[in-house]
Amino acid sequence: MSSTSPIDVAWMRRAVELAARGIGSTHPNPVVGCVITARDGHPVGEGWHAVTGGPHAEVGALRMAGNRARGGTAYVTLEPCNHTGRTGPCAQALVEAGIARVVYAVPDPNPQAAGGASYLVEHGVEVESGVLSGEAEAGNGIWLHAVRTGRPFVTWKFATTLDGRSAAKDGSSKWITGTAARADVHRLRATCDAIAVGTQTVFDDDPELTVRDEFDVPVERQPLRVVVGDREIPETARVRNPQAETLLLPTHDPAEVLRQLADRQIRHLWLEGGPTLAAAFVRAGLVDRIVTYVAPALLGSGRSAVGDLGAESIADLRRFSLSDVTRLGDDVRLTLSPVSQHAQSPARTDLRTV
Amino acid sequence: MSSTSPIDVAWMRRAVELAARGIGSTHPNPVVGCVITARDGHPVGEGWHAVTGGPHAEVGALRMAGNRARGGTAYVTLEPCNHTGRTGPCAQALVEAGIARVVYAVPDPNPQAAGGASYLVEHGVEVESGVLSGEAEAGNGIWLHAVRTGRPFVTWKFATTLDGRSAAKDGSSKWITGTAARADVHRLRATCDAIAVGTQTVFDDDPELTVRDEFDVPVERQPLRVVVGDREIPETARVRNPQAETLLLPTHDPAEVLRQLADRQIRHLWLEGGPTLAAAFVRAGLVDRIVTYVAPALLGSGRSAVGDLGAESIADLRRFSLSDVTRLGDDVRLTLSPVSQHAQSPARTDLRTV
Ligand SMILES: NC(=O)c1ccc[n+]([C@@H]2O[C@H](COP(=O)([O-])OP(=O)(O)OC[C@H]3O[C@@H](n4cnc5c(N)ncnc54)[C@H](OP(=O)(O)O)[C@@H]3O)[C@@H](O)[C@H]2O)c1
Ligand SMILES: NC(=O)c1ccc[n+]([C@@H]2O[C@H](COP(=O)([O-])OP(=O)(O)OC[C@H]3O[C@@H](n4cnc5c(N)ncnc54)[C@H](OP(=O)(O)O)[C@@H]3O)[C@@H](O)[C@H]2O)c1
Repeated sequence: MSSTSPIDVAWMRRAVELAARGIGSTHPNPVVGCVITARDGHPVGEGWHAVTGGPHAEVGALRMAGNRARGGTAYVTLEPCNHTGRTGPCAQALVEAGIARVVYAVPDPNPQAAGGASYLVEHGVEVESGVLSGEAEAGNGIWLHAVRTGRPFVTWKFATTLDGRSAAKDGSSKWITGTAARADVHRLRATCDAIAVGTQTVFDDDPELTVRDEFDVPVERQPLRVVVGDREIPETARVRNPQAETLLLPTHDPAEVLRQLADRQIRHLWLEGGPTLAAAFVRAGLVDRIVTYVAPALLGSGRSAVGDLGAESIADLRRFSLSDVTRLGDDVRLTLSPVSQHAQSPARTDLRTV
Repeated sequence: MSSTSPIDVAWMRRAVELAARGIGSTHPNPVVGCVITARDGHPVGEGWHAVTGGPHAEVGALRMAGNRARGGTAYVTLEPCNHTGRTGPCAQALVEAGIARVVYAVPDPNPQAAGGASYLVEHGVEVESGVLSGEAEAGNGIWLHAVRTGRPFVTWKFATTLDGRSAAKDGSSKWITGTAARADVHRLRATCDAIAVGTQTVFDDDPELTVRDEFDVPVERQPLRVVVGDREIPETARVRNPQAETLLLPTHDPAEVLRQLADRQIRHLWLEGGPTLAAAFVRAGLVDRIVTYVAPALLGSGRSAVGDLGAESIADLRRFSLSDVTRLGDDVRLTLSPVSQHAQSPARTDLRTV
């Protein structure tokens, strides 16, 4: 491991590329890529986990390689799994195909699936890990975060004026940002598994909380809609329409919200606000990324973008690190990560998945 | 004029380049550049207005050209002046030197100095105007704006959190932004002729309102310090120290502030806030540029970046056009212009002068 060969790195890079093809369609699974080289070093198989329930990356690559896999090496972005889920365990498939050596990037943090490496070693396969792990983590940042912490990764999105207003005095907020920013929201929202708002946003805005394409048509795979708060939502609320599933969570505790969502295998929660619910998540330290759309506009009054955070003086300022600045039409999108997570890979690098 | 020759454009471009050398040191005059070509078309003289009270661009260029100017062409970024100020009229100097043709970019909007073109024509000089006027205007955007409107160009600067707060609940505001952003403020502030705040900012922050270099030493040329409001400022206030001149304006009327400053030949006012004074300028439509430093941080409470603007609903949103987005350390600087001025050159193009 200390002297990683450039050949191993090159094939792992290709496996990472293959893995990326599955981004957005493997929920609640990670994306995985696999390359198989024959005994003589030539590539003979490629595979990736393309869709939930579909074959794992290793299986696809073994199928392509056929007999040429015997005595060869498998490069996999994630430790091969050792459990029988919707498909059989990959570790076993690799052994059966006669693979002599397995190189993987990231150990599987999922307790159910882990153990693949030990199985391989027990069956006489040479195993190496950690090759190109940074890049491989990047493609699975959100999934790894969710599996490691046992709760969904939380992205809080808000649109705001330059003076931090998310709605005017009378509650109107359509539209603060322009079409390019709003299209971007739909694009990013589509990568999440659940969208949450507080009850007040439902009362004020009656949002549908669906992902729509450029023709404003709902896309096929819709995130779970989540409404947080004690009050009853009217039967006629658009969030109750049949376009997507809806979960009502009569609680004020962000941690409880995340527990409920983890039970439903939600890996990535898109927090749409409003300011009160968002403030509760920020105070609880449960926001992993902030995506904010700043409009070059002033209101001078109206609802603040975020509710009270208990700050008394400037010493209580909550700082984040700026991971990206992108202009979208006349608006600017800023992407922030919590400072404490700055040094860790997932919060910074999962940007590749959006 | 309809068929501008590429040779004229080339020499005018050089004159615009020369003019830019004077940026920041010609107050209250414009920057001007001049190229003289001999009868045979070869360049024989270059000049620029380098410093207030120093020779005008044409005079410098004529001096360099000497006898070779006779029968030649002068390219000047601004219509040659026709009045005797600190130096003699340039139109006369060009005639005396035997210049046969004068090409200038922008007519002089200053009623005192205008008339140079007519003087030249009357004395048999061929005159052409409008060549590369857009680029020449850019270098003098603020000066042209001030002379054309009869009031200073107003840049409002503010630092804010992502949720639009300029100070915490207890009034503390040091520091919202980082060192790179604060250095940038000093750099931009140095290009202005006056800095204004409301009395409350003096009471709360006791700012010195001077321009300091990277070693925190006050620079030589200090903008005029202006405090707006009725209340008396303590004798001990730092804004009253001898580092720079200070003007106290006991008024609440932004237009009156600008009249007083125009009388003092102020071309560029840097409005530092606070929120109340800034809101008064915004409501009066007297902000020509907004420079805002957004910190990736949240307060959730505290003083808003801008006071009440009378907005009731989202229809009252005041939109600006985004002319620049620049990352400075962990902060982001956004530069905005009023939408109505979007199509005009000065508000957009004077960015070159900062
Ligand atoms: N610009 C944007 O990006 C954006 C996004 C979303 C919303 N908005 C605007 O935000 C406004 C709504 O603001 P809001 O802050 O009132 O909405 P909100 O956060 O959506 O809803 C607040 C409600 O959620 C419930 N709740 C859940 N967890 C809570 C907790 N920890 N603490 C307190 N209450 C909790 C409470 O209702 P119960 O009494 O039912 O428990 C509370 O009244 C709307 O005008 C909307 O337009 C703007
Ligand atoms: N983050 C930043 O970029 C920044 C910049 C500057 C200030 N600040 C913060 O802003 C806070 C001060 O806020 P502020 O809004 O009270 O300060 P301000 O705008 O500097 O001063 C307000 C005072 O100016 C006078 N005034 C002048 N024109 C007025 C008008 N048209 N309408 C009403 N009053 C007028 C009034 O005082 P009289 O009674 O004397 O007439 C008024 O009380 C401080 O805490 C400071 O830290 C932040």
